[in-house]
Amino acid sequence: MSKARLLLGREAAASLDQRTSEAAAALKAAGITPALAIVRCGENASDLAYEAGVLKRSKAAGIEVRRVILKENCEKESLIREIHKLNEDPGVHGVLMFRPLPKALKPYEGGICNELSPEKDVDCMTDLSNAGVYEGKELGFPPCTPSACMEILDYYGIDLEGKNVAVIGRSLVVGRPLAMMLMARHATVTICHTRTRDIPSITRRADVIVSSAGVLNSLTAEHVREGQVVIDVSINWDPSGKGGKGGIAGDAAFDEIEGIAGAITPVPGGVGAVTTSVLFSHVVTAAQRQKGKG
Amino acid sequence: MSKARLLLGREAAASLDQRTSEAAAALKAAGITPALAIVRCGENASDLAYEAGVLKRSKAAGIEVRRVILKENCEKESLIREIHKLNEDPGVHGVLMFRPLPKALKPYEGGICNELSPEKDVDCMTDLSNAGVYEGKELGFPPCTPSACMEILDYYGIDLEGKNVAVIGRSLVVGRPLAMMLMARHATVTICHTRTRDIPSITRRADVIVSSAGVLNSLTAEHVREGQVVIDVSINWDPSGKGGKGGIAGDAAFDEIEGIAGAITPVPGGVGAVTTSVLFSHVVTAAQRQKGKG
Repeated sequence: MSKARLLLGREAAASLDQRTSEAAAALKAAGITPALAIVRCGENASDLAYEAGVLKRSKAAGIEVRRVILKENCEKESLIREIHKLNEDPGVHGVLMFRPLPKALKPYEGGICNELSPEKDVDCMTDLSNAGVYEGKELGFPPCTPSACMEILDYYGIDLEGKNVAVIGRSLVVGRPLAMMLMARHATVTICHTRTRDIPSITRRADVIVSSAGVLNSLTAEHVREGQVVIDVSINWDPSGKGGKGGIAGDAAFDEIEGIAGAITPVPGGVGAVTTSVLFSHVVTAAQRQKGKG
Repeated sequence: MSKARLLLGREAAASLDQRTSEAAAALKAAGITPALAIVRCGENASDLAYEAGVLKRSKAAGIEVRRVILKENCEKESLIREIHKLNEDPGVHGVLMFRPLPKALKPYEGGICNELSPEKDVDCMTDLSNAGVYEGKELGFPPCTPSACMEILDYYGIDLEGKNVAVIGRSLVVGRPLAMMLMARHATVTICHTRTRDIPSITRRADVIVSSAGVLNSLTAEHVREGQVVIDVSINWDPSGKGGKGGIAGDAAFDEIEGIAGAITPVPGGVGAVTTSVLFSHVVTAAQRQKGKG
Protein backbone atom coordinates (compact mmCIF):
# COMPACT_ATOMS: atom_id res chain seq x y z
CA MET A 1 0.00 0.00 0.00
CA SER A 2 1.62 3.22 -1.12
CA LYS A 3 1.42 6.18 1.16
CA ALA A 4 -0.01 9.60 0.34
CA ARG A 5 2.40 12.39 -0.32
CA LEU A 6 2.56 14.74 2.66
CA LEU A 7 1.77 18.34 1.82
CA LEU A 8 3.88 20.16 4.38
CA GLY A 9 2.83 23.56 5.60
CA ARG A 10 6.35 24.55 6.54
CA GLU A 11 7.53 24.18 2.94
CA ALA A 12 4.71 26.30 1.55
CA ALA A 13 5.25 28.80 4.37
CA ALA A 14 8.98 29.07 3.69
CA SER A 15 8.31 29.76 0.03
CA LEU A 16 5.76 32.44 0.86
CA ASP A 17 7.98 34.00 3.57
CA GLN A 18 10.77 34.27 1.01
CA ARG A 19 8.54 36.26 -1.35
CA THR A 20 7.22 38.37 1.54
CA SER A 21 10.66 39.26 2.86
CA GLU A 22 11.80 40.26 -0.65
CA ALA A 23 8.78 42.50 -1.05
CA ALA A 24 9.32 43.92 2.44
CA ALA A 25 12.95 44.68 1.59
CA ALA A 26 11.87 46.52 -1.56
CA LEU A 27 9.41 48.57 0.47
CA LYS A 28 12.08 49.36 3.06
CA ALA A 29 14.38 50.54 0.30
CA ALA A 30 11.59 52.95 -0.61
CA GLY A 31 11.36 54.16 3.00
CA ILE A 32 8.38 52.10 4.11
CA THR A 33 8.55 49.48 6.84
CA PRO A 34 5.52 47.21 6.51
CA ALA A 35 3.85 47.20 9.89
CA LEU A 36 1.15 45.11 11.52
CA ALA A 37 -0.78 46.23 14.59
CA ILE A 38 -2.18 43.52 16.83
CA VAL A 39 -5.21 44.56 18.87
CA ARG A 40 -5.87 42.39 21.89
CA CYS A 41 -8.47 42.80 24.65
CA GLY A 42 -7.55 40.78 27.71
CA GLU A 43 -5.19 37.84 28.14
CA ASN A 44 -6.89 34.94 26.42
CA ALA A 45 -4.42 32.02 26.27
CA SER A 46 -4.89 31.20 22.60
CA ASP A 47 -4.62 34.90 21.64
CA LEU A 48 -1.34 35.10 23.56
CA ALA A 49 -0.02 31.96 21.88
CA TYR A 50 -0.86 33.25 18.40
CA GLU A 51 0.61 36.65 19.24
CA ALA A 52 3.86 35.06 20.43
CA GLY A 53 4.10 33.15 17.14
CA VAL A 54 3.53 36.33 15.14
CA LEU A 55 6.14 38.26 17.12
CA LYS A 56 8.69 35.45 16.82
CA ARG A 57 8.30 35.00 13.08
CA SER A 58 7.78 38.61 12.02
CA LYS A 59 11.47 39.53 11.87
CA ALA A 60 12.32 36.94 9.23
CA ALA A 61 9.43 38.19 7.09
CA GLY A 62 10.59 41.80 7.46
CA ILE A 63 7.39 42.91 9.19
CA GLU A 64 7.27 45.27 12.16
CA VAL A 65 4.68 44.35 14.78
CA ARG A 66 3.10 46.78 17.19
CA ARG A 67 0.75 45.70 19.95
CA VAL A 68 -2.29 47.58 21.20
CA ILE A 69 -3.39 45.89 24.40
CA LEU A 70 -6.65 46.74 26.15
CA LYS A 71 -8.18 45.35 29.29
CA GLU A 72 -10.68 42.50 29.05
CA ASN A 73 -13.32 44.83 30.50
CA CYS A 74 -12.46 47.78 28.25
CA GLU A 75 -15.22 50.05 26.98
CA LYS A 76 -16.49 49.61 23.45
CA GLU A 77 -15.67 53.27 22.80
CA SER A 78 -12.02 52.85 23.86
CA LEU A 79 -11.58 49.94 21.48
CA ILE A 80 -13.18 51.84 18.60
CA ARG A 81 -10.98 54.86 19.37
CA GLU A 82 -7.87 52.63 19.07
CA ILE A 83 -9.11 51.22 15.76
CA HIS A 84 -9.69 54.73 14.43
CA LYS A 85 -6.17 55.75 15.48
CA LEU A 86 -4.75 52.78 13.56
CA ASN A 87 -6.88 53.67 10.51
CA GLU A 88 -5.36 57.13 10.50
CA ASP A 89 -1.76 56.07 11.23
CA PRO A 90 0.16 55.91 7.91
CA GLY A 91 2.85 53.85 9.66
CA VAL A 92 0.45 50.94 10.21
CA HIS A 93 -0.51 48.93 7.13
CA GLY A 94 -2.44 46.03 8.55
CA VAL A 95 -4.47 45.36 11.70
CA LEU A 96 -5.21 42.02 13.35
CA MET A 97 -7.79 42.18 16.13
CA PHE A 98 -8.18 39.00 18.15
CA ARG A 99 -11.65 37.56 18.11
CA PRO A 100 -13.93 36.56 19.62
CA LEU A 101 -13.88 39.72 21.69
CA PRO A 102 -14.39 39.44 25.47
CA LYS A 103 -17.93 38.56 26.50
CA ALA A 104 -19.06 42.11 27.32
CA LEU A 105 -18.06 43.33 23.83
CA LYS A 106 -19.39 40.28 21.95
CA PRO A 107 -22.81 41.84 21.13
CA TYR A 108 -21.05 44.74 19.35
CA GLU A 109 -18.38 42.68 17.60
CA GLY A 110 -19.80 43.04 14.08
CA GLY A 111 -20.06 46.80 14.37
CA ILE A 112 -16.63 47.15 15.97
CA CYS A 113 -15.00 45.05 13.21
CA ASN A 114 -16.48 47.34 10.56
CA GLU A 115 -14.78 50.37 12.11
CA LEU A 116 -11.50 49.18 10.58
CA SER A 117 -10.53 50.56 7.17
CA PRO A 118 -10.90 47.69 4.66
CA GLU A 119 -7.45 48.45 3.19
CA LYS A 120 -5.89 47.57 6.58
CA ASP A 121 -8.16 44.58 7.15
CA VAL A 122 -5.55 41.84 6.68
CA ASP A 123 -7.69 39.19 8.44
CA CYS A 124 -11.10 39.75 6.80
CA MET A 125 -13.14 41.13 9.66
CA THR A 126 -15.07 43.80 7.71
CA ASP A 127 -18.10 43.38 5.48
CA LEU A 128 -16.18 44.97 2.62
CA SER A 129 -13.39 42.39 2.86
CA ASN A 130 -16.06 39.72 2.68
CA ALA A 131 -17.61 41.44 -0.33
CA GLY A 132 -14.17 41.41 -1.97
CA VAL A 133 -13.83 37.64 -1.51
CA TYR A 134 -17.33 37.04 -2.83
CA GLU A 135 -17.15 39.44 -5.77
CA GLY A 136 -13.54 38.67 -6.64
CA LYS A 137 -12.68 42.36 -6.18
CA GLU A 138 -9.71 43.95 -4.49
CA LEU A 139 -11.45 45.16 -1.33
CA GLY A 140 -9.57 44.29 1.84
CA PHE A 141 -8.21 40.73 2.20
CA PRO A 142 -9.54 37.19 2.43
CA PRO A 143 -9.27 35.32 5.72
CA CYS A 144 -5.83 33.80 6.37
CA THR A 145 -6.89 30.15 6.62
CA PRO A 146 -8.42 29.68 3.15
CA SER A 147 -5.53 31.70 1.70
CA ALA A 148 -3.18 29.22 3.44
CA CYS A 149 -5.00 26.34 1.71
CA MET A 150 -4.49 28.05 -1.65
CA GLU A 151 -0.78 28.58 -0.87
CA ILE A 152 -0.33 24.85 -0.19
CA LEU A 153 -2.20 23.85 -3.35
CA ASP A 154 -0.10 26.28 -5.40
CA TYR A 155 3.20 25.37 -3.77
CA TYR A 156 2.67 21.70 -4.61
CA GLY A 157 1.56 22.53 -8.15
CA ILE A 158 -1.97 21.17 -7.77
CA ASP A 159 -3.90 22.49 -10.73
CA LEU A 160 -7.49 23.48 -10.01
CA GLU A 161 -8.96 24.44 -13.36
CA GLY A 162 -11.81 22.12 -14.26
CA LYS A 163 -11.26 20.02 -11.13
CA ASN A 164 -14.08 18.95 -8.84
CA VAL A 165 -13.55 20.11 -5.28
CA ALA A 166 -15.66 19.11 -2.29
CA VAL A 167 -15.43 21.64 0.52
CA ILE A 168 -16.78 20.41 3.85
CA GLY A 169 -17.91 23.33 5.98
CA ARG A 170 -19.66 26.58 5.08
CA SER A 171 -18.21 29.03 7.62
CA LEU A 172 -17.20 32.57 6.71
CA VAL A 173 -13.64 31.92 7.89
CA VAL A 174 -12.98 28.77 5.84
CA GLY A 175 -15.61 27.02 3.75
CA ARG A 176 -17.39 29.89 2.03
CA PRO A 177 -14.33 32.02 1.18
CA LEU A 178 -12.39 28.96 0.06
CA ALA A 179 -15.25 27.99 -2.26
CA MET A 180 -15.08 31.47 -3.81
CA MET A 181 -11.29 31.34 -4.17
CA LEU A 182 -11.37 27.87 -5.73
CA MET A 183 -14.13 28.95 -8.11
CA ALA A 184 -12.07 31.98 -9.12
CA ARG A 185 -9.42 29.44 -10.17
CA HIS A 186 -12.06 27.68 -12.26
CA ALA A 187 -12.63 24.67 -10.02
CA THR A 188 -16.14 23.23 -9.77
CA VAL A 189 -16.99 23.42 -6.09
CA THR A 190 -19.58 21.58 -4.01
CA ILE A 191 -20.06 22.99 -0.52
CA CYS A 192 -21.03 20.28 1.99
CA HIS A 193 -22.23 21.01 5.51
CA THR A 194 -24.04 19.53 8.48
CA ARG A 195 -27.31 19.17 6.53
CA THR A 196 -25.69 17.54 3.50
CA ARG A 197 -26.91 14.02 2.80
CA ASP A 198 -24.32 11.32 2.11
CA ILE A 199 -21.13 13.37 2.20
CA PRO A 200 -18.95 10.33 1.28
CA SER A 201 -20.71 10.00 -2.08
CA ILE A 202 -19.84 13.63 -2.82
CA THR A 203 -16.25 13.58 -1.56
CA ARG A 204 -15.41 10.33 -3.38
CA ARG A 205 -16.25 11.96 -6.71
CA ALA A 206 -14.03 14.97 -6.06
CA ASP A 207 -10.45 15.50 -7.20
CA VAL A 208 -9.68 17.59 -4.11
CA ILE A 209 -11.34 17.36 -0.68
CA VAL A 210 -11.06 20.22 1.79
CA SER A 211 -12.31 19.37 5.25
CA SER A 212 -13.11 22.10 7.74
CA ALA A 213 -15.78 20.27 9.72
CA GLY A 214 -13.93 20.62 13.01
CA VAL A 215 -14.89 17.07 14.02
CA LEU A 216 -12.20 14.56 14.97
CA ASN A 217 -12.10 11.49 12.72
CA SER A 218 -15.02 12.73 10.63
CA LEU A 219 -13.16 12.13 7.36
CA THR A 220 -12.65 8.41 6.96
CA ALA A 221 -11.65 5.78 4.40
CA GLU A 222 -15.19 5.72 3.00
CA HIS A 223 -14.87 9.40 2.01
CA VAL A 224 -11.81 9.01 -0.18
CA ARG A 225 -10.57 7.23 -3.25
CA GLU A 226 -7.14 6.71 -4.76
CA GLY A 227 -5.21 9.69 -5.98
CA GLN A 228 -7.22 12.42 -4.31
CA VAL A 229 -5.73 15.48 -2.66
CA VAL A 230 -6.96 15.97 0.92
CA ILE A 231 -6.58 19.34 2.64
CA ASP A 232 -7.39 18.98 6.32
CA VAL A 233 -8.05 22.43 7.75
CA SER A 234 -9.39 21.61 11.20
CA ILE A 235 -7.49 21.69 14.45
CA ASN A 236 -9.16 19.37 16.94
CA TRP A 237 -8.09 18.01 20.28
CA ASP A 238 -7.53 14.28 20.20
CA PRO A 239 -7.50 12.84 23.73
CA SER A 240 -5.88 9.63 22.46
CA GLY A 241 -3.26 11.44 20.40
CA LYS A 242 0.48 11.38 20.97
CA GLY A 243 0.41 7.89 22.40
CA GLY A 244 -2.48 8.49 24.75
CA LYS A 245 -1.25 11.79 26.16
CA GLY A 246 -3.58 13.82 23.97
CA GLY A 247 -2.65 16.08 21.10
CA ILE A 248 -3.76 18.10 18.11
CA ALA A 249 -5.40 16.35 15.14
CA GLY A 250 -7.42 17.27 12.06
CA ASP A 251 -10.70 15.89 10.73
CA ALA A 252 -9.01 13.04 8.90
CA ALA A 253 -8.63 9.57 10.36
CA PHE A 254 -5.07 10.00 9.14
CA ASP A 255 -3.80 6.42 9.28
CA GLU A 256 -6.59 5.00 7.15
CA ILE A 257 -6.68 7.84 4.61
CA GLU A 258 -2.91 8.00 4.19
CA GLY A 259 -2.99 4.61 2.46
CA ILE A 260 -5.65 5.66 -0.06
CA ALA A 261 -5.31 9.35 -0.97
CA GLY A 262 -2.64 10.69 -3.30
CA ALA A 263 -1.66 13.59 -1.05
CA ILE A 264 -2.70 14.93 2.34
CA THR A 265 -1.86 17.77 4.70
CA PRO A 266 -0.87 16.55 8.18
CA VAL A 267 -2.27 18.14 11.35
CA PRO A 268 -0.26 19.65 12.91
CA GLY A 269 2.16 20.72 10.19
CA GLY A 270 -0.31 21.45 7.41
CA VAL A 271 -2.59 24.43 6.80
CA GLY A 272 -2.11 25.87 10.28
CA ALA A 273 1.63 26.22 9.64
CA VAL A 274 0.94 28.65 6.78
CA THR A 275 -1.61 31.08 8.24
CA THR A 276 0.91 33.39 9.91
CA SER A 277 2.91 33.57 6.68
CA VAL A 278 -0.28 34.56 4.87
CA LEU A 279 -0.91 37.27 7.45
CA PHE A 280 2.56 38.72 6.79
CA SER A 281 2.05 38.56 3.05
CA HIS A 282 -1.22 40.45 3.46
CA VAL A 283 0.56 43.16 5.46
CA VAL A 284 3.15 43.59 2.71
CA THR A 285 0.44 43.71 0.05
CA ALA A 286 -1.46 46.27 2.14
CA ALA A 287 1.69 48.39 2.39
CA GLN A 288 2.19 48.16 -1.39
CA ARG A 289 -1.41 49.21 -2.07
CA GLN A 290 -1.26 52.08 0.42
CA LYS A 291 2.03 53.23 -1.07
CA GLY A 292 0.36 53.35 -4.47
CA LYS A 293 -2.38 55.55 -3.04
CA GLY A 294 -0.21 57.71 -0.79
CA MET B 1 -44.64 9.82 -21.26
CA SER B 2 -45.85 12.06 -18.45
CA LYS B 3 -45.14 15.73 -18.71
CA ALA B 4 -43.32 17.89 -16.18
CA ARG B 5 -45.36 20.13 -13.96
CA LEU B 6 -45.08 23.74 -15.13
CA LEU B 7 -43.85 26.12 -12.45
CA LEU B 8 -45.58 29.33 -13.48
CA GLY B 9 -44.04 32.66 -12.63
CA ARG B 10 -47.35 34.48 -12.70
CA GLU B 11 -48.70 32.32 -9.88
CA ALA B 12 -45.68 32.90 -7.66
CA ALA B 13 -45.77 36.59 -8.58
CA ALA B 14 -49.47 36.94 -7.71
CA SER B 15 -48.85 35.37 -4.31
CA LEU B 16 -45.92 37.68 -3.62
CA ASP B 17 -47.81 40.77 -4.90
CA GLN B 18 -50.63 39.94 -2.49
CA ARG B 19 -48.23 39.96 0.47
CA THR B 20 -46.52 43.11 -0.81
CA SER B 21 -49.76 45.05 -1.25
CA GLU B 22 -50.89 44.06 2.25
CA ALA B 23 -47.61 45.25 3.72
CA ALA B 24 -47.81 48.44 1.64
CA ALA B 25 -51.33 49.07 2.93
CA ALA B 26 -50.15 48.67 6.52
CA LEU B 27 -47.34 51.15 5.87
CA LYS B 28 -49.77 53.61 4.29
CA ALA B 29 -52.00 53.32 7.34
CA ALA B 30 -48.95 54.42 9.32
CA GLY B 31 -48.43 57.39 6.99
CA ILE B 32 -45.69 55.92 4.79
CA THR B 33 -46.12 55.33 1.06
CA PRO B 34 -43.44 52.87 -0.06
CA ALA B 35 -41.65 54.55 -2.94
CA LEU B 36 -39.19 53.38 -5.57
CA ALA B 37 -37.01 55.76 -7.56
CA ILE B 38 -35.90 54.61 -10.99
CA VAL B 39 -32.67 56.20 -12.22
CA ARG B 40 -32.19 56.01 -15.96
CA CYS B 41 -29.44 57.54 -18.13
CA GLY B 42 -30.50 57.71 -21.77
CA GLU B 43 -33.22 55.89 -23.66
CA ASN B 44 -32.01 52.31 -23.93
CA ALA B 45 -34.85 50.19 -25.31
CA SER B 46 -34.64 47.39 -22.78
CA ASP B 47 -34.45 49.89 -19.90
CA LEU B 48 -37.58 51.59 -21.24
CA ALA B 49 -39.38 48.26 -21.55
CA TYR B 50 -38.52 47.26 -17.98
CA GLU B 51 -39.48 50.70 -16.71
CA ALA B 52 -42.86 50.51 -18.44
CA GLY B 53 -43.50 47.15 -16.78
CA VAL B 54 -42.60 48.55 -13.37
CA LEU B 55 -44.84 51.59 -13.82
CA LYS B 56 -47.74 49.47 -15.03
CA ARG B 57 -47.59 46.95 -12.19
CA SER B 58 -46.61 49.24 -9.32
CA LYS B 59 -50.15 50.40 -8.52
CA ALA B 60 -51.44 46.91 -7.76
CA ALA B 61 -48.51 46.38 -5.41
CA GLY B 62 -49.15 49.68 -3.64
CA ILE B 63 -45.77 51.13 -4.59
CA GLU B 64 -45.21 54.70 -5.74
CA VAL B 65 -42.66 55.05 -8.54
CA ARG B 66 -40.68 58.20 -9.24
CA ARG B 67 -38.37 58.53 -12.24
CA VAL B 68 -35.05 60.36 -12.33
CA ILE B 69 -34.05 60.62 -15.98
CA LEU B 70 -30.63 61.84 -17.08
CA LYS B 71 -29.19 62.27 -20.53
CA GLU B 72 -27.12 59.47 -22.05
CA ASN B 73 -24.13 61.83 -22.03
CA CYS B 74 -24.67 63.09 -18.48
CA GLU B 75 -21.67 63.86 -16.28
CA LYS B 76 -20.62 61.33 -13.66
CA GLU B 77 -20.97 64.07 -11.04
CA SER B 78 -24.58 64.82 -12.00
CA LEU B 79 -25.52 61.17 -11.65
CA ILE B 80 -23.79 60.90 -8.27
CA ARG B 81 -25.55 64.07 -7.12
CA GLU B 82 -28.93 62.52 -7.98
CA ILE B 83 -28.03 59.35 -6.09
CA HIS B 84 -27.04 61.40 -3.04
CA LYS B 85 -30.34 63.28 -3.21
CA LEU B 86 -32.21 59.98 -3.21
CA ASN B 87 -30.13 58.72 -0.28
CA GLU B 88 -31.17 61.74 1.72
CA ASP B 89 -34.83 61.77 0.69
CA PRO B 90 -36.88 60.06 3.43
CA GLY B 91 -39.76 59.72 0.95
CA VAL B 92 -37.76 57.31 -1.25
CA HIS B 93 -37.20 53.81 0.15
CA GLY B 94 -35.62 51.98 -2.76
CA VAL B 95 -33.58 52.92 -5.83
CA LEU B 96 -33.25 51.01 -9.09
CA MET B 97 -30.56 52.37 -11.41
CA PHE B 98 -30.51 50.84 -14.89
CA ARG B 99 -27.25 49.15 -15.81
CA PRO B 100 -25.07 48.87 -17.71
CA LEU B 101 -24.63 52.64 -17.64
CA PRO B 102 -24.00 54.45 -20.96
CA LYS B 103 -20.57 53.81 -22.45
CA ALA B 104 -18.94 57.02 -21.18
CA LEU B 105 -19.91 56.21 -17.58
CA LYS B 106 -19.08 52.49 -17.76
CA PRO B 107 -15.51 52.83 -16.36
CA TYR B 108 -16.95 54.45 -13.20
CA GLU B 109 -19.93 52.14 -12.80
CA GLY B 110 -18.63 50.27 -9.73
CA GLY B 111 -17.86 53.47 -7.88
CA ILE B 112 -21.15 55.11 -8.86
CA CYS B 113 -23.14 52.08 -7.69
CA ASN B 114 -21.49 52.27 -4.28
CA GLU B 115 -22.68 55.84 -3.80
CA LEU B 116 -26.15 54.46 -3.08
CA SER B 117 -27.05 53.81 0.57
CA PRO B 118 -27.19 50.02 1.02
CA GLU B 119 -30.54 50.28 2.82
CA LYS B 120 -32.09 51.67 -0.39
CA ASP B 121 -30.23 49.23 -2.64
CA VAL B 122 -33.21 47.08 -3.70
CA ASP B 123 -31.37 45.62 -6.70
CA CYS B 124 -27.98 44.69 -5.17
CA MET B 125 -25.67 47.14 -6.88
CA THR B 126 -23.47 47.97 -3.86
CA ASP B 127 -20.62 45.97 -2.37
CA LEU B 128 -22.41 45.94 0.98
CA SER B 129 -25.52 44.35 -0.55
CA ASN B 130 -23.26 41.69 -2.01
CA ALA B 131 -21.61 41.21 1.39
CA GLY B 132 -25.07 40.75 2.87
CA VAL B 133 -25.92 37.97 0.40
CA TYR B 134 -22.59 36.27 1.01
CA GLU B 135 -22.55 36.62 4.79
CA GLY B 136 -26.27 35.99 5.24
CA LYS B 137 -26.58 39.38 6.95
CA GLU B 138 -29.26 42.02 6.57
CA LEU B 139 -27.23 44.55 4.53
CA GLY B 140 -29.10 45.85 1.51
CA PHE B 141 -30.91 43.32 -0.70
CA PRO B 142 -30.05 40.36 -2.93
CA PRO B 143 -30.45 40.71 -6.69
CA CYS B 144 -34.04 40.29 -7.93
CA THR B 145 -33.47 37.30 -10.21
CA PRO B 146 -32.16 34.78 -7.67
CA SER B 147 -34.81 36.01 -5.22
CA ALA B 148 -37.40 35.27 -7.93
CA CYS B 149 -36.07 31.70 -8.19
CA MET B 150 -36.47 31.29 -4.43
CA GLU B 151 -40.03 32.66 -4.62
CA ILE B 152 -40.97 30.06 -7.25
CA LEU B 153 -39.39 27.21 -5.27
CA ASP B 154 -41.20 28.35 -2.14
CA TYR B 155 -44.53 28.96 -3.84
CA TYR B 156 -44.54 25.43 -5.21
CA GLY B 157 -43.47 23.98 -1.87
CA ILE B 158 -40.17 22.58 -3.10
CA ASP B 159 -38.20 21.73 0.01
CA LEU B 160 -34.48 22.47 -0.18
CA GLU B 161 -33.02 21.19 3.06
CA GLY B 162 -30.55 18.42 2.39
CA LYS B 163 -31.26 18.51 -1.34
CA ASN B 164 -28.52 18.52 -3.96
CA VAL B 165 -28.74 21.53 -6.24
CA ALA B 166 -26.66 22.09 -9.37
CA VAL B 167 -26.43 25.77 -10.28
CA ILE B 168 -25.12 26.44 -13.79
CA GLY B 169 -23.52 29.87 -13.96
CA ARG B 170 -21.39 31.80 -11.48
CA SER B 171 -22.39 35.41 -12.14
CA LEU B 172 -22.94 37.94 -9.38
CA VAL B 173 -26.49 38.55 -10.57
CA VAL B 174 -27.67 34.92 -10.60
CA GLY B 175 -25.37 31.96 -9.96
CA ARG B 176 -23.31 33.11 -7.02
CA PRO B 177 -26.07 34.79 -4.98
CA LEU B 178 -28.46 31.92 -5.68
CA ALA B 179 -25.85 29.44 -4.42
CA MET B 180 -25.62 31.45 -1.19
CA MET B 181 -29.40 31.67 -0.81
CA LEU B 182 -29.86 27.94 -1.45
CA MET B 183 -27.08 27.11 1.01
CA ALA B 184 -28.74 29.32 3.62
CA ARG B 185 -31.75 27.02 3.18
CA HIS B 186 -29.48 24.04 3.82
CA ALA B 187 -29.22 22.75 0.27
CA THR B 188 -25.92 21.23 -0.89
CA VAL B 189 -24.92 23.32 -3.87
CA THR B 190 -22.51 22.63 -6.72
CA ILE B 191 -21.70 25.67 -8.85
CA CYS B 192 -21.01 24.72 -12.47
CA HIS B 193 -19.56 27.12 -15.04
CA THR B 194 -17.87 27.32 -18.41
CA ARG B 195 -14.75 25.49 -17.14
CA THR B 196 -16.70 22.68 -15.46
CA ARG B 197 -16.00 19.24 -16.90
CA ASP B 198 -18.96 17.00 -17.71
CA ILE B 199 -21.83 19.17 -16.51
CA PRO B 200 -24.43 16.46 -17.35
CA SER B 201 -22.86 14.07 -14.82
CA ILE B 202 -23.29 16.74 -12.16
CA THR B 203 -26.79 17.89 -13.07
CA ARG B 204 -28.13 14.33 -13.34
CA ARG B 205 -27.22 13.70 -9.71
CA ALA B 206 -28.99 16.82 -8.46
CA ASP B 207 -32.51 17.11 -7.08
CA VAL B 208 -32.86 20.63 -8.44
CA ILE B 209 -31.11 22.14 -11.49
CA VAL B 210 -30.90 25.91 -11.94
CA SER B 211 -29.63 26.97 -15.33
CA SER B 212 -28.37 30.49 -15.90
CA ALA B 213 -25.90 29.73 -18.68
CA GLY B 214 -27.54 32.11 -21.14
CA VAL B 215 -27.03 29.63 -23.99
CA LEU B 216 -29.98 28.47 -26.04
CA ASN B 217 -30.60 24.70 -25.90
CA SER B 218 -27.63 24.17 -23.60
CA LEU B 219 -29.69 22.10 -21.14
CA THR B 220 -30.72 18.90 -22.88
CA ALA B 221 -32.16 15.45 -22.18
CA GLU B 222 -28.72 14.15 -21.21
CA HIS B 223 -28.58 16.65 -18.31
CA VAL B 224 -31.75 15.51 -16.59
CA ARG B 225 -33.36 12.52 -14.98
CA GLU B 226 -36.87 11.71 -13.88
CA GLY B 227 -38.43 13.74 -11.11
CA GLN B 228 -36.00 16.64 -11.07
CA VAL B 229 -36.99 20.26 -10.66
CA VAL B 230 -35.57 22.49 -13.40
CA ILE B 231 -35.42 26.26 -12.94
CA ASP B 232 -34.52 27.91 -16.22
CA VAL B 233 -33.33 31.44 -15.51
CA SER B 234 -31.97 32.51 -18.88
CA ILE B 235 -33.71 34.66 -21.44
CA ASN B 236 -32.27 33.91 -24.88
CA TRP B 237 -33.38 34.82 -28.35
CA ASP B 238 -34.46 31.78 -30.34
CA PRO B 239 -34.54 32.58 -34.08
CA SER B 240 -36.61 29.45 -34.74
CA GLY B 241 -39.05 30.14 -31.91
CA LYS B 242 -42.76 30.91 -32.24
CA GLY B 243 -43.08 28.81 -35.36
CA GLY B 244 -40.05 30.23 -37.10
CA LYS B 245 -40.79 33.90 -36.41
CA GLY B 246 -38.29 34.04 -33.57
CA GLY B 247 -38.99 34.42 -29.87
CA ILE B 248 -37.73 34.26 -26.32
CA ALA B 249 -36.47 30.96 -24.91
CA GLY B 250 -34.48 29.70 -21.94
CA ASP B 251 -31.46 27.39 -21.74
CA ALA B 252 -33.60 24.26 -21.74
CA ALA B 253 -34.41 22.30 -24.88
CA PHE B 254 -37.91 22.43 -23.47
CA ASP B 255 -39.65 19.77 -25.52
CA GLU B 256 -37.16 17.03 -24.69
CA ILE B 257 -36.79 17.94 -20.99
CA GLU B 258 -40.52 18.32 -20.39
CA GLY B 259 -40.98 14.60 -20.85
CA ILE B 260 -38.30 13.69 -18.27
CA ALA B 261 -38.18 16.24 -15.45
CA GLY B 262 -40.74 16.39 -12.68
CA ALA B 263 -41.21 20.15 -12.88
CA ILE B 264 -39.86 23.01 -14.98
CA THR B 265 -40.22 26.76 -15.33
CA PRO B 266 -41.22 27.84 -18.84
CA VAL B 267 -39.48 30.72 -20.64
CA PRO B 268 -41.20 33.11 -21.01
CA GLY B 269 -43.55 32.82 -18.05
CA GLY B 270 -41.13 31.51 -15.43
CA VAL B 271 -38.51 33.29 -13.36
CA GLY B 272 -38.65 36.48 -15.44
CA ALA B 273 -42.31 36.93 -14.55
CA VAL B 274 -41.43 37.23 -10.85
CA THR B 275 -38.51 39.70 -10.79
CA THR B 276 -40.63 42.86 -10.80
CA SER B 277 -42.72 41.48 -7.94
CA VAL B 278 -39.49 40.83 -6.03
CA LEU B 279 -38.39 44.41 -6.68
CA PHE B 280 -41.66 45.70 -5.18
CA SER B 281 -41.33 43.41 -2.18
CA HIS B 282 -37.81 44.74 -1.60
CA VAL B 283 -39.13 48.32 -1.68
CA VAL B 284 -41.74 47.47 0.96
CA THR B 285 -39.14 45.72 3.12
CA ALA B 286 -36.83 48.72 2.73
CA ALA B 287 -39.65 51.03 3.84
CA GLN B 288 -40.34 48.80 6.85
CA ARG B 289 -36.68 48.78 7.86
CA GLN B 290 -36.32 52.54 7.40
CA LYS B 291 -39.48 53.10 9.43
CA GLY B 292 -37.95 51.06 12.26
CA LYS B 293 -34.87 53.25 12.17
CA GLY B 294 -36.60 56.57 11.63
